[in-house]
Amino acid sequence: MARDNETRDRFGAFLPIQTRWADMDSYGHVNNMVFYSYIDTAVTAFLVREAGHDKDIAAAIGLVVESGCSYFEPVAFPAVIHCGVRVAKLGRSSVRYEVGMFVDDATLPAALGFFVHVFVERASGRPMPMPDRIRAALAPLQLICGD
Amino acid sequence: MARDNETRDRFGAFLPIQTRWADMDSYGHVNNMVFYSYIDTAVTAFLVREAGHDKDIAAAIGLVVESGCSYFEPVAFPAVIHCGVRVAKLGRSSVRYEVGMFVDDATLPAALGFFVHVFVERASGRPMPMPDRIRAALAPLQLICGD
Amino acid sequence: MARDNETRDRFGAFLPIQTRWADMDSYGHVNNMVFYSYIDTAVTAFLVREAGHDKDIAAAIGLVVESGCSYFEPVAFPAVIHCGVRVAKLGRSSVRYEVGMFVDDATLPAALGFFVHVFVERASGRPMPMPDRIRAALAPLQLICGD
Amino acid sequence: MARDNETRDRFGAFLPIQTRWADMDSYGHVNNMVFYSYIDTAVTAFLVREAGHDKDIAAAIGLVVESGCSYFEPVAFPAVIHCGVRVAKLGRSSVRYEVGMFVDDATLPAALGFFVHVFVERASGRPMPMPDRIRAALAPLQLICGD
Repeated sequence: MARDNETRDRFGAFLPIQTRWADMDSYGHVNNMVFYSYIDTAVTAFLVREAGHDKDIAAAIGLVVESGCSYFEPVAFPAVIHCGVRVAKLGRSSVRYEVGMFVDDATLPAALGFFVHVFVERASGRPMPMPDRIRAALAPLQLICGD
Repeated sequence: MARDNETRDRFGAFLPIQTRWADMDSYGHVNNMVFYSYIDTAVTAFLVREAGHDKDIAAAIGLVVESGCSYFEPVAFPAVIHCGVRVAKLGRSSVRYEVGMFVDDATLPAALGFFVHVFVERASGRPMPMPDRIRAALAPLQLICGD
Repeated sequence: MARDNETRDRFGAFLPIQTRWADMDSYGHVNNMVFYSYIDTAVTAFLVREAGHDKDIAAAIGLVVESGCSYFEPVAFPAVIHCGVRVAKLGRSSVRYEVGMFVDDATLPAALGFFVHVFVERASGRPMPMPDRIRAALAPLQLICGD
Repeated sequence: MARDNETRDRFGAFLPIQTRWADMDSYGHVNNMVFYSYIDTAVTAFLVREAGHDKDIAAAIGLVVESGCSYFEPVAFPAVIHCGVRVAKLGRSSVRYEVGMFVDDATLPAALGFFVHVFVERASGRPMPMPDRIRAALAPLQLICGD
């Protein structure tokens, strides 16, 4: 994924996430895996708040089947990561989210990641159509995402 | 550590920390170890911002020799944890921090933790007096902490 | 908690845990919070394997109400932490576990931690007596633990 | 990345990693980000042990510029993840590692991930050729990795 032009207006549903001291590894940078925690958190907070997703009783849950991230510059503690979400592909039972991670007041993201959720019936683990309430909440996040 | 009377006015240097989806374990609560990450982050952010601590070049670093936490109620994602810090004991080369963790706008903390830093010379690992700049920054955090 | 005499024979149910690169923070040591993950893992693996605890269907779950750790020496990646468990206090509805963490073939622990589990009815969150199967599995772990 | 044919013989330098209780999120599965910690750990342990990489004094360090993972089945605690490494592309100053993650004695991986390291001069952050010692250690890991 390229960084060019990936400014904040290409993402929505921003969530500010405080970095933590232990996010950094021995090299004094936020470790590569931690960015997936930012991505996961921004998307799930959106699903809870805007789509009423309830982890305890939801009959459909999203399983992550693929994820990826490009890192453009090192990030150090303490910084706040402003995570913006967009929906790159909205399928019948799956969705691809892309998340831009902007440090403090930066114009371009320090990292850009994605993951694909496949919705499954919680009890059986079988794929099922995305719940309507989630689809309705995600639709407005199909923002400009390049070409 | 007891919860009674541990209201926000007994702590200072508050830092809001966004919980993360993966902070929760299989029981759907923030896992016990994650609170130590909140504690660590609140204190270290203070040292960086108010005492000019620079992880890359500091000649003196604080090693954690003891820590502990009391948990008063389960916490679930998404919530913001407002972490307030106080200094319970300020020694020559060591300090005991106590951190109250308040969920969203709660009056009483969901958890109350502490840790003890012993300052050591980075190169040799030998105890040394706390740097003056850190002592000066910590002094005002010696708040009312019970009886 | 003191380190003297806390040799491996004072603990049981050893579990070897591989350290991870991201366990270390910017100082190049395993971060203080990560030891709680070792503690938690050693105890829970025991409950799953020896007491048949099933996180998905168990009617009783253990909530951590207090935890603590003493750190005797820094630990660096890659090392294997051999975690030994003992039961320091076995109550009607609660138990205090203590876990010694030994690096590779060390004789004395690098860290010594504890936590207290209170068993609650999962649905209501109310305290309940510890399940018999768990009590029976824990009884033999009431090892010599000092005085 | 596809799972077909990705048996253990297509990877080397296996490292067993004990899962941890807190690796699982509220859905009772190892969280997607945690797999990156397994990947990171397997590769870095190799670099430390076989290429003499020393995090404290190395003049060249590898920065992660891209990573990704495909998840084929949910993983639950307690399991041991056997992580095998291969080198998919060995460039002048960069390398692409692929890591297969096999649960206990499974024949096919539960997840398959990768990341790209670009070697930089630690002090300046500028790209530099991969150190010879690292190149020599990585060469034998250029295993069959399909086409």
